[in-house]
Amino acid sequence: MKRERFEDLFSPRSVAVIGASNNFGKLGYHVMKSLVKGGYSGEIYPINPKGEEIWGIRSYRSLGEVPHRVDLAIIAVPAALVPPVLEECGQKGVKGVVMITAGFREIEASEGAELQERVREIAERWGLPIIGPNTFGFVNLPFGINATFTPEFSRMEAGGVALVSQSGGFCHLSGFLAMEQGVGFSKVVGLGNRANVDFPEMLEYLAEDPDTRVIALYIEGIDEPRRLMEVAKGLRGKKFVLAYKAGRSEKGDDASRFHTGSLAGNYRIWQGALRQAGILEVDSTEELLDTAKALSSSPLLHGRRIAVLSSQAGPGLIASDRVEGEGLELARFSPQTQRRINEILPPLAIRSNPVDMGPAWYDPGAIVRILEAVLDDEGTDGVLFLNMFASANLRLAQGVREYMEKREELRKPVIACFAFPPGVWDEEVRKMDRRKGFVVLPTPERAAKAMANLWRMKLLMEDGSP
Amino acid sequence: MKRERFEDLFSPRSVAVIGASNNFGKLGYHVMKSLVKGGYSGEIYPINPKGEEIWGIRSYRSLGEVPHRVDLAIIAVPAALVPPVLEECGQKGVKGVVMITAGFREIEASEGAELQERVREIAERWGLPIIGPNTFGFVNLPFGINATFTPEFSRMEAGGVALVSQSGGFCHLSGFLAMEQGVGFSKVVGLGNRANVDFPEMLEYLAEDPDTRVIALYIEGIDEPRRLMEVAKGLRGKKFVLAYKAGRSEKGDDASRFHTGSLAGNYRIWQGALRQAGILEVDSTEELLDTAKALSSSPLLHGRRIAVLSSQAGPGLIASDRVEGEGLELARFSPQTQRRINEILPPLAIRSNPVDMGPAWYDPGAIVRILEAVLDDEGTDGVLFLNMFASANLRLAQGVREYMEKREELRKPVIACFAFPPGVWDEEVRKMDRRKGFVVLPTPERAAKAMANLWRMKLLMEDGSP
Repeated sequence: MKRERFEDLFSPRSVAVIGASNNFGKLGYHVMKSLVKGGYSGEIYPINPKGEEIWGIRSYRSLGEVPHRVDLAIIAVPAALVPPVLEECGQKGVKGVVMITAGFREIEASEGAELQERVREIAERWGLPIIGPNTFGFVNLPFGINATFTPEFSRMEAGGVALVSQSGGFCHLSGFLAMEQGVGFSKVVGLGNRANVDFPEMLEYLAEDPDTRVIALYIEGIDEPRRLMEVAKGLRGKKFVLAYKAGRSEKGDDASRFHTGSLAGNYRIWQGALRQAGILEVDSTEELLDTAKALSSSPLLHGRRIAVLSSQAGPGLIASDRVEGEGLELARFSPQTQRRINEILPPLAIRSNPVDMGPAWYDPGAIVRILEAVLDDEGTDGVLFLNMFASANLRLAQGVREYMEKREELRKPVIACFAFPPGVWDEEVRKMDRRKGFVVLPTPERAAKAMANLWRMKLLMEDGSP
Repeated sequence: MKRERFEDLFSPRSVAVIGASNNFGKLGYHVMKSLVKGGYSGEIYPINPKGEEIWGIRSYRSLGEVPHRVDLAIIAVPAALVPPVLEECGQKGVKGVVMITAGFREIEASEGAELQERVREIAERWGLPIIGPNTFGFVNLPFGINATFTPEFSRMEAGGVALVSQSGGFCHLSGFLAMEQGVGFSKVVGLGNRANVDFPEMLEYLAEDPDTRVIALYIEGIDEPRRLMEVAKGLRGKKFVLAYKAGRSEKGDDASRFHTGSLAGNYRIWQGALRQAGILEVDSTEELLDTAKALSSSPLLHGRRIAVLSSQAGPGLIASDRVEGEGLELARFSPQTQRRINEILPPLAIRSNPVDMGPAWYDPGAIVRILEAVLDDEGTDGVLFLNMFASANLRLAQGVREYMEKREELRKPVIACFAFPPGVWDEEVRKMDRRKGFVVLPTPERAAKAMANLWRMKLLMEDGSP
């Protein structure tokens, strides 16, 4: 499959929606809504046998009737109609297909697998890459296209993470969590049954995608894991690759087979293979998003010595436990750094590492000077920076935001946690979170875990042994 | 310490704030704001040597000048002034004290420990229970008092969880997370340095508190763990007790000593002791809140056979992995149940357990009938119910909410996950979440973990071996 084909598929100048509809009960309705409301700036050609206006746009009775070039065809017609429609796509010179239609390899009846094989053959003949079948589609956020049946995906932020998933449900789960937590995406792609576009093809394409810094995979089971690992090895040092592997148990295996037609395989073998391929394995949806967020905007962690700065002692203690539990170390401050901290904080507080910045509540400038002292310390590789709102420290977030806006780009990761009631620090924290290198996560535990994953990723990038 | 004293402390008819202030830079300002803005309906007596109006309320130069009975005194004056002030509290017949002042056993200098010992002696002489010193205070939500320096705590929901914490920062972290996630609290208490009110005293009091169903402990380190365990054993079968233990490493131990003056002790020993005492140990802030939420509103899990119902296959697969990984089992549906499901779903979907309810997207009634079929099945003990928004299933949340409002109280736990973009299902899900027995958590993994913790708690309640 040629790279240009993927360019045309993911950044099309024109899109035909085959099965477009004005009827809420059809997926073709929601696909049209996604394109129109998502502000897609190319041409849209709804295809529907009735030939009426759809979403206010002139439609055509068939793809052949469209008098213009069509880059992408989104197919949302019943399964039995797919082969002739796909044939028509080939004849029309379509560059790529999103096949939303279900009822292929994933169903119990053997006709499904046969139908998928026919689809694969037609696509092969025309050199047509297919996302799907049995997919919700894809979004390309920097380009501005929402080619899915979920218009709300257009609200996601653009950013450096590409999510490639075997499950559309997982993309919806992650996408909505990401909206809350400010994770920005380059692309979200639901592979579905993978007629001819599978994880390796996506990795090869994303390796060259300038918008993508981190590739996050959600894998249930695939037919050729070896091919995936080979491609991933080639990406080492080029892009960060994460994977969340589901379908770990026997039952899960069954479910996976029915879902997208592939056996999940032995989980232990998967774990080893992922590690050898330089892919960082994570263990939950939240860990995937947190780690992707950190990798997409933070500098790498060059050593394992972490400073824990906390405006309250308890959360600092929790983070310190994790730092040590995750194979990182609490940094030892240099005498100079310790002196700088001791000038700011009275002996009332813990001033070694973890640092309890409590006494500086009323003075955001002091909090910022402690952060700066620790960032200057050659013996500190990364900082966990924890701040819980407490009325008396109301101006803290503003002070940190102003500091972050003034200072040059961070050379060390700072992963922060700000906890506050709605309506208090929201805006300030949102702004900080957008600063290159400054990452905000919801709890001290999750901040520490993401820091540990920066370290694991560094080790994987170096030699494949975490 | 007599129980009535605690009643007067936590549900006082009148409160004196010693160190009340109109100056934002003093904690006495924020305490006054908490009482006034929090809508406390009892009498408030600000005490300040200047004798001016404070927060619009007549103040007194000293506690002795107040011409009325004072149940609770909140002390926020410098540490050196605390002993005479406490003496005055005793003379005035105050029933209980919240001592916000810091600078006692937690500081490096030995004067701190000496001062705390003097405080303890004075309190002993007058039979005065002290929350603190070095605390942010407490809230009693069903009673309607916010006796802390954080006015925003008044926004928390009232509910069945009492949080007793050695760290005020942890209460702030948890409290703000809980606001987002709809966890309701009876009381939140920051124990601080525990002059004479420690975990065992709080457990004894909360054991009899009709507002409290679940007691959640955040423990760093305590002097008499044995006493805590003895009291906890006495609560078995009466209240659910959870604990999150911080200060696990050597460094953590140091930090804990400085923070609230106690060694954290060996973590492994702690784990065994908690289990034997019937206390369920959790491993993160989010797990503490999720589990407390489930225990406070859900029926117990009477067996380990779980049904996974998911509107999308992927999240169902993730939940199934966890069910098996956490020592639960995927339920086998009875032939009758399977028949009921097969009548609703076409063979397109996985209809055994996990159930992929995808084909029922357009029909909330069908989703509800599947849920009902599974709840009716004698071979199913609990249900994980996962629904990701997808435009086409827009009306799903409304349908489920209406069903939950009609049906009688649940006899089995249903732990749900609804993922959606802001502004879509918020209101419906919020309402469902308030239905007795129906618990909503943010991800399939966290829903499954909470379900597993319901099971662990049942085992602990029975015989102490999880």
